[in-house]
This record gives sequence, C-alpha cells and structure tokens, in this order.
Amino acid sequence: MKPSSPGKALVVGFDVPARIGMPLAEVVTPALLIDLDAFEHNVATLGQQLGLAGLRLRAHSKTHKSVDIARYQIDRGGACGICCQKLSEAEVMVAGGIDDVLISNQVVDPARIERLAMLALRARMLICVDDSDNVTNLSAAAVRQGASIECLVEIDCGAGRCGVGPGQAAVSLAQQIAASPGLKFAGLQAYQGKAQHIREYAARGQAITAAITQARTTVDDLAAAGLRCDIIAGAGTGSYHFEAASNLYNELQCGSYIFMDADYQRVLDQSGQPISEFENSLFLWTSIMSKTRPDMAICDAGLKVLSVDSGLPRVFARDDIEYVNCSDEHGTIADPHNRLKLNQKLKLVPGHCDPTCNLHDWYVGIRNDTVECLWPVSARGKAF
Amino acid sequence: MKPSSPGKALVVGFDVPARIGMPLAEVVTPALLIDLDAFEHNVATLGQQLGLAGLRLRAHSKTHKSVDIARYQIDRGGACGICCQKLSEAEVMVAGGIDDVLISNQVVDPARIERLAMLALRARMLICVDDSDNVTNLSAAAVRQGASIECLVEIDCGAGRCGVGPGQAAVSLAQQIAASPGLKFAGLQAYQGKAQHIREYAARGQAITAAITQARTTVDDLAAAGLRCDIIAGAGTGSYHFEAASNLYNELQCGSYIFMDADYQRVLDQSGQPISEFENSLFLWTSIMSKTRPDMAICDAGLKVLSVDSGLPRVFARDDIEYVNCSDEHGTIADPHNRLKLNQKLKLVPGHCDPTCNLHDWYVGIRNDTVECLWPVSARGKAF
Repeated sequence: MKPSSPGKALVVGFDVPARIGMPLAEVVTPALLIDLDAFEHNVATLGQQLGLAGLRLRAHSKTHKSVDIARYQIDRGGACGICCQKLSEAEVMVAGGIDDVLISNQVVDPARIERLAMLALRARMLICVDDSDNVTNLSAAAVRQGASIECLVEIDCGAGRCGVGPGQAAVSLAQQIAASPGLKFAGLQAYQGKAQHIREYAARGQAITAAITQARTTVDDLAAAGLRCDIIAGAGTGSYHFEAASNLYNELQCGSYIFMDADYQRVLDQSGQPISEFENSLFLWTSIMSKTRPDMAICDAGLKVLSVDSGLPRVFARDDIEYVNCSDEHGTIADPHNRLKLNQKLKLVPGHCDPTCNLHDWYVGIRNDTVECLWPVSARGKAF
Repeated sequence: MKPSSPGKALVVGFDVPARIGMPLAEVVTPALLIDLDAFEHNVATLGQQLGLAGLRLRAHSKTHKSVDIARYQIDRGGACGICCQKLSEAEVMVAGGIDDVLISNQVVDPARIERLAMLALRARMLICVDDSDNVTNLSAAAVRQGASIECLVEIDCGAGRCGVGPGQAAVSLAQQIAASPGLKFAGLQAYQGKAQHIREYAARGQAITAAITQARTTVDDLAAAGLRCDIIAGAGTGSYHFEAASNLYNELQCGSYIFMDADYQRVLDQSGQPISEFENSLFLWTSIMSKTRPDMAICDAGLKVLSVDSGLPRVFARDDIEYVNCSDEHGTIADPHNRLKLNQKLKLVPGHCDPTCNLHDWYVGIRNDTVECLWPVSARGKAF
C-alpha cells in the first residue's frame, strides 16, 4: 500500500522553534515559552477559587488562541466553556472540539451572522448584542439555519466601548430577543475592561463597584419585566475578586490569569503589592545577537515578536540588566556590569500577553528546562 | 485517473478576506488593503530617482515580507535585490525565487550560520557582521558547505544598535573577513535607523550627515588598508535623499516607501511639509461594529491587526472623525457629527507599516474599487 500524502515536515528554526525533548537551551530564538508548572498552577488556582465560590469560569481564549489551552482549561481548570472575541476564533475552537462558546463581542455583518448561525448547529453558541437591527438579523439567520443562538445583552458599564446603556435600554433589547424566533435571551454581559489595569486596589474597586451597581440595576429592571438572567457575565484577571464577591455575577471571563504579563504585574492587590496569586508562565525566549559595547547588548526580540502597547518587556529574574528600547527586530538591553555575552539567552516577560501571543505560531511548553510540548497558536491571526 | 490531493479551499472571511474580482465593499474586515495604483506609483518613483542617480536600490523586504512584492520591486521597480532582516525571511524569499539577498543584520547562532551557508549555495547571500568570532564561524560554515558568503562590516553610525565603531574597528574586522576562506569582504553597512523618523528636515539632515561622515572615514581607512568597498549601504525612506547625495553610498535600502504610514507622514521635507513624493498605498479596512452613542463608534480594528508602537492609525480622507483609542480587538472612533453607521467601512492608515503587515496573512490588492490580487504575507511570523 502506498503511503498517503506525505505532508510536510516541520523544520526546527524555520517552521517551529523547538522539538519535543529538546533542552530549553537549544530552543531557537525568538520563541514563546510556557513554563508548564507555573501555567498549571495558575489554571488550578483560579479554577479552585471559583469552584469553591460556586461561580462558573468561562475562560477567555482571546488571550491564548489555542485549542490545546482551551481544552486544558475545560478539562483540568474548571472552565464551563470559553469566550472568543471573533467569529473566526470561535470557528477554530469549535473545529477543535470545544462545544460551549460565547463570542463576548458583536457580530453584525450579514455574512458572518449566517456563519454564526451555522456554527450554532455544531456547538452551544452565545453572542453579545447591543443593537436592535442586529437582533433582527440574528433571528432571521437562526431561523434560516434551524439553529438556536443564545444572546447576552451587553451593557456599557464604564468602559465606554460596546454595549447599550444599563437599565431600560437593556430591557428593551432583552424583550426583543425573548420575542425573536431562533434566539434565546440568556442574560447580561457587563465587562468593565478599562478597570482591569487600574493600578491601585481601591480605585479599581471603585470602578468595578460602579459597574456592578449598573449591572444590578439592569438585572432588577429585567426581573421586573419578567426576564431572568441565566448568565450575568464579565470580569477579568485584574478585577475578578470584586465580581466574585458581588453576589450578582455568576460567570467570570478571566483570560490573562494563565500567563500574566508585565503590565498586569503593575496592578496592585489590597496590601499594595503586585498581584501574586498567579505566576509568570509566559516568556519570550531571546538571544543576544550583538555585543559591541560594554554597557549595552542587542537581543533578537523586537516589535514583531512582542507587543509593546502596554510597555516594554521585563527581563525575568534579572535586576542587573534592563530591556530599554524596542525596534522592529531588535531589543536594546542595558548591561551596566557588562555581563551579557553573544548568543546568551534570556527570558523576557512580555508587556501585554494577548497581542504578543497573536504574533506567534507556536507555544513551546517547558518543564525542568526541557521541551515537553508544542502547541499551535491555533487561531493566530483569526481577526475576522 | 484519480485526482491528486485535493488541498484545501480558502474560505473567504476565514482563511482569506476576499476573492479576486470582489468589490471592495464586500471585502471582509479587518483586512490589509493595497491601493495598487498608489503602490505602483511609489515603486516607480523611487526606482526612477535612484536609476537616474546611478544608485542601486536593494529594497527592504522586512516592510512587506511578501515574495510577490519583492519580485515586483526587482522586475518593475529597479531593485537589484532585496534586504531581509532574518534568516528565515531570507529562506522564504530564496524559495520564492529571489536570488540576491542581503540579511542586513547579524546571524550569530551556530545552527543558523550553517543554514545561511546552505542558502548561499542557492542564491547570492550577503550578511552584516560586527563580531570577530562570528566571522570565524561564518567562514567555517561556508567552507564546510562549499559556499561563498559576502560580508558587509556594519558600523554603528549613530543608531546605537548593532555595529562596530567606525574607523579602525571596522578595518580590523574587514581584514579578518578578507583573509577568511569562504567569505568575501563586500563593503560597509552604515544605516542610521533612528534618524529616519526625526521630524524636522534640518535635524534629520544633521544626524544623517554625521552618519555619512563616519561612513566616509571608515571607507577611507579601509582604502588605506587596501580594502575596497563594492557596496556602501544604508538609508531608509526618511533619509535616502541625503545618502543619495553623499557621493559615497551606492546601495540604498528603503522599505516603507512602497506603503508609507501615519508615522512617516509626520516626517517633514525641506519645505516643512509632510513627505509627499510617496502616497499612502496601505490601508487597514475596518467596519463599524457597535454604534450605541451619538458621538462615538467602535470599529473592529484593534491591536491584533494594527501595531500602535508609533502612534494610532489615521482615518484616511476623513477629517470629521478620528481614531482615538485602541484595545485588543476594538478601535474607538470619535464621531462628533454622528455620521457613522453600523457596518459602515473605513480605511485606516496604520501608524507603523512593518509590524502591522506582520500581523496579517494576506494583502488584498485593490484597483478601481475591485479586488485585483491576493498576495500572501509569505514571511509573516518568520522571526527566526
């Protein structure tokens, strides 16, 4: 019997940065590493916390865009399902076997609405809405496809982005959903994205408390109109303690907790210290590629492998050197004690994990300084 | 006869944002557009300028990472070859048929040096060096592979990144190259990257003049040591007029001129006006996906499709609205006259073209508001 199509071998250093079993020291740079012990700790920590509190975790896959990680969060981390931010991400996740997906965002163009309805034939699909015409179009597509789409009314509770106002605007939209064939009114999306990164605990708490108040008012108004919210959803890694304690939210959407990043570690807890319940598990592995000056070194990690929108990366576990400048393919590292050598490798903590992961095709999972797994960034670039 | 392996169809709105012949209005958002008329104008403009001046253009493919565009620059835009910034980019370009490639950067790790030597069996390969051990390793690999690698000595002429000092440090390295089997000393790399974006013409000219002076000194020192530079290379879109007029540089490495971006359009010419010889040809096509407030709209283009390291995008040909905030998957557009509607599409001019292109898998080439071509971003993510 002839072999089937031979496929294509993955070349280390071209297609992939590593092979399984390789020592970390040999992993090609620049590459995105996951410290598996830290990652598993983070997944377990939040899963246990929310489980004990009787709250659902719908883990946000926009952080990682990986079917493998989504599967791990559901199988081992207590997640009831996942959030996606884009239809094309959701299509990747459903194709990968994830069967309970909220697109925590609007899908408003006609072609994509039709695809969403088709996807709802294969998995439980939930979507956020903030527009009446959109509800009409979602209903028509669901009816055409013979599908059922669950809708959360999104309210703007302070982030100033998507969402209708709290209270009556939300009630009107919910009533329309409840009356629309093919749709089910499933509850409320009330995510205060801007508050996640407020540094001081008290100020962050104040912003989230305001959001919770708006969500509570809306839930009460919905109840008065005879509409019950199965799901009251929102929260992120920076704020989830507040929503968890609200006695209102029942489904939390944390994403970054699995990895953490340099920006989230500037967010302070109640004692004024950086959040420490989650560990850094995501690293950008980089090499020194030029060392011509005693006080400076150039590494091979620049804007094309690191998103600097929320600040520069931090060199992990090194106080004696500092990443001080970023250009397209280079990073400048201040090396005042002249300790760095050509080809020396370093771990960087990315400034912002989500858009950094979206630059890469692979995660290299590391345990005991050895490559244990290679996970594709399955939905990388899926922005549609 | 049975059909061969069926491959995989590209689904519009999942794998690709458009199909050829589609009206622009139907191209799925977010997508990266090339206005082909403007692109061709830009390529022709620089090609003609440098051709008339008797200078070579080695177009920088780090901007676009596209074999199709590299091929067009060589076939139709007067380019003698291309620059890459990474070995894996060069491997993509050589596989695509480009046969004259300078890696305008250092390749220092042993595994990649070996691959560079192998690549030099298939194409003319040039590389920049700034380290003596690296020269030794490049020579050994070239000899092992039976290849010849051309080396440019890179000097730091003001950017403070890679490169040895001008003058004697460069001469020593050049002498070592000239004496190394398998290597050829080909000349000097003197690129002042930091100066490209200096806004004022006079200040930019001053920085580049200082760089030219350092390059000239080094060329003279090399000549005094009996070493002739076939190539004296550098320059970018912001500075190339100065290097072109230097009577020293003979190979210019412009990249962004094909597309332009919002940041380059803050760079001023001699008359104090934004550079106008090149037109905007690169656009991020985006849709309004939420419109719940009269003075604001939310579009579907955020950090995962736009690099904001050099500032936010500009809305093209619209003074009445402004892109004012960017999050992972959303952009906030100030709409003070309440003109935007749900599903309305807009062209954004990215803040920084190179890292924006690296986020996308496809260019959608547009002429007369119709899709004329789809070009893959062939080396997207090739950061090794």
